[in-house]
Amino acid sequence: MAEPENDWPGLAGRIEGERHLLPVRIYFEDTDFTGLVYHASFLRFCERGRSDFVRLLGISHQDLLAGKEDGEPAVFVVRHMEIDFLKPARIDDVIEVVTECAEIGGATLTLKQEVVRGGQVLVCASVKVVLISRSGKPLRVGPLIRSAFERFVNQDH
Amino acid sequence: MAEPENDWPGLAGRIEGERHLLPVRIYFEDTDFTGLVYHASFLRFCERGRSDFVRLLGISHQDLLAGKEDGEPAVFVVRHMEIDFLKPARIDDVIEVVTECAEIGGATLTLKQEVVRGGQVLVCASVKVVLISRSGKPLRVGPLIRSAFERFVNQDH
Amino acid sequence: MAEPENDWPGLAGRIEGERHLLPVRIYFEDTDFTGLVYHASFLRFCERGRSDFVRLLGISHQDLLAGKEDGEPAVFVVRHMEIDFLKPARIDDVIEVVTECAEIGGATLTLKQEVVRGGQVLVCASVKVVLISRSGKPLRVGPLIRSAFERFVNQDH
Amino acid sequence: MAEPENDWPGLAGRIEGERHLLPVRIYFEDTDFTGLVYHASFLRFCERGRSDFVRLLGISHQDLLAGKEDGEPAVFVVRHMEIDFLKPARIDDVIEVVTECAEIGGATLTLKQEVVRGGQVLVCASVKVVLISRSGKPLRVGPLIRSAFERFVNQDH
Repeated sequence: MAEPENDWPGLAGRIEGERHLLPVRIYFEDTDFTGLVYHASFLRFCERGRSDFVRLLGISHQDLLAGKEDGEPAVFVVRHMEIDFLKPARIDDVIEVVTECAEIGGATLTLKQEVVRGGQVLVCASVKVVLISRSGKPLRVGPLIRSAFERFVNQDH
Repeated sequence: MAEPENDWPGLAGRIEGERHLLPVRIYFEDTDFTGLVYHASFLRFCERGRSDFVRLLGISHQDLLAGKEDGEPAVFVVRHMEIDFLKPARIDDVIEVVTECAEIGGATLTLKQEVVRGGQVLVCASVKVVLISRSGKPLRVGPLIRSAFERFVNQDH
Repeated sequence: MAEPENDWPGLAGRIEGERHLLPVRIYFEDTDFTGLVYHASFLRFCERGRSDFVRLLGISHQDLLAGKEDGEPAVFVVRHMEIDFLKPARIDDVIEVVTECAEIGGATLTLKQEVVRGGQVLVCASVKVVLISRSGKPLRVGPLIRSAFERFVNQDH
Repeated sequence: MAEPENDWPGLAGRIEGERHLLPVRIYFEDTDFTGLVYHASFLRFCERGRSDFVRLLGISHQDLLAGKEDGEPAVFVVRHMEIDFLKPARIDDVIEVVTECAEIGGATLTLKQEVVRGGQVLVCASVKVVLISRSGKPLRVGPLIRSAFERFVNQDH
């Protein structure tokens, strides 16, 4: 059976240098009665960026959960986030989520993310994620994920 | 430790006669750029109504999933829905989700739901839900759920 | 300034014959604790499909709201929906939203939509939308939208 | 016609001393495939807490938008947020959103928010909101909002 991914190149965005880029269209669901994008929608967009960055590095959430990557069944969860909402976005806009890996710790990854539109930064965020087991225990970042991300760690951060 | 439910009576709505009533406040997250409530938000409200109806009948999603009710681990999923969006709702509104059980089949429950505000029907829906196992197999409605709902089946539908 | 759309061809899907196709990736936000896609998420996906179909026909929500299309400021709202949830979707899946225009009435458009994955229909829906003014009054479907959709009306429905 | 608020006392939570408390039930929509509450859902809960705190102080979003409070039409938007996700929440849980006003600036309000369950802090956040005009211009916090919040500013922060 044809893989739908093959029909839609670029669906998971692309990696340019040390950064991952994902385009996001603003739909009804992302906006609120103020006419602007609801603030928590940007966290959803950032999560999509992180998921697709990881995907292009060969790691899937289903495989992590099935324990196929680095052993024990695992999921990524967000532990800490600092986020600036600088400018608004609106219905029909196309924005880009830019993700960089700032730091790989023993059990955490720190990512820098920006939401941009036409060269303007709308939102910027620093996000610390941890890998946890099904029971909630933090797991060490294993060699597979570590080696996948290592070459992307931006030395400037 | 104090159960938070005890501090907030009415949090799960209440049963009046054969109907369950749940109040819902409209927040930013429920609206879109048109200034009105986003249509799919009403499905979320209806799901809250169904969950709290079931809750007041003594059935919890966690227990269903843990297999404590009627045996095998199970979750409710929506199989079919017909929904009329008659009038809009807006930020700050208080609406009520009214849920009745129209029919109990071998493996399905059919519920009639209305979203009302100040006596006006905003949305009405007919929802067929099924109980499925973790592998996706439809399960028969067991005696616990059947007996819980039986007295609520509205003969008029 | 570069238009981000130009960097991401296919972001709004594509029209094939009388149908519009939009790929959608399943992210964390679309799933629930059952491990499956939350039922109301499919309504969000269908709305994205309708928005991008309209977009590829040259109609933008911002222009409708600014009154640039066919006169009075207007927005599309859903009036009626009938939806079957046939099979589940899961995290990381790529699904396609297929949209056809079944009927153009005086003030309504009826669309047939399917969510498919690898040739399998997961969800099918019939959706009646109306164009309303800012005050909530239904508006006649003007010549611009009528002529845009007319050639897509599938005679089989 | 009866006001639905009167039928549901406590729907907007309550003020205890310098803090606002809002109970929130966890439904399907709030969780994701990991079985836990999706991280961005906590931002929605925090926004509900802020909205209901403001509501109990006599300020409604509809009135702000209609320009009935302190003059020019206005909406609250989030400018900055720092958030720690300490412990997970699950389906059926009842959590409480605790909101305090930490600081009133010329054009900003800084709020401290905690999401707690049975005495345990699950999430804590510092949120800076600004009041903006419809065109996006930051507005000074007027006397009505200032005086409403002033007595709640917690001197310990």
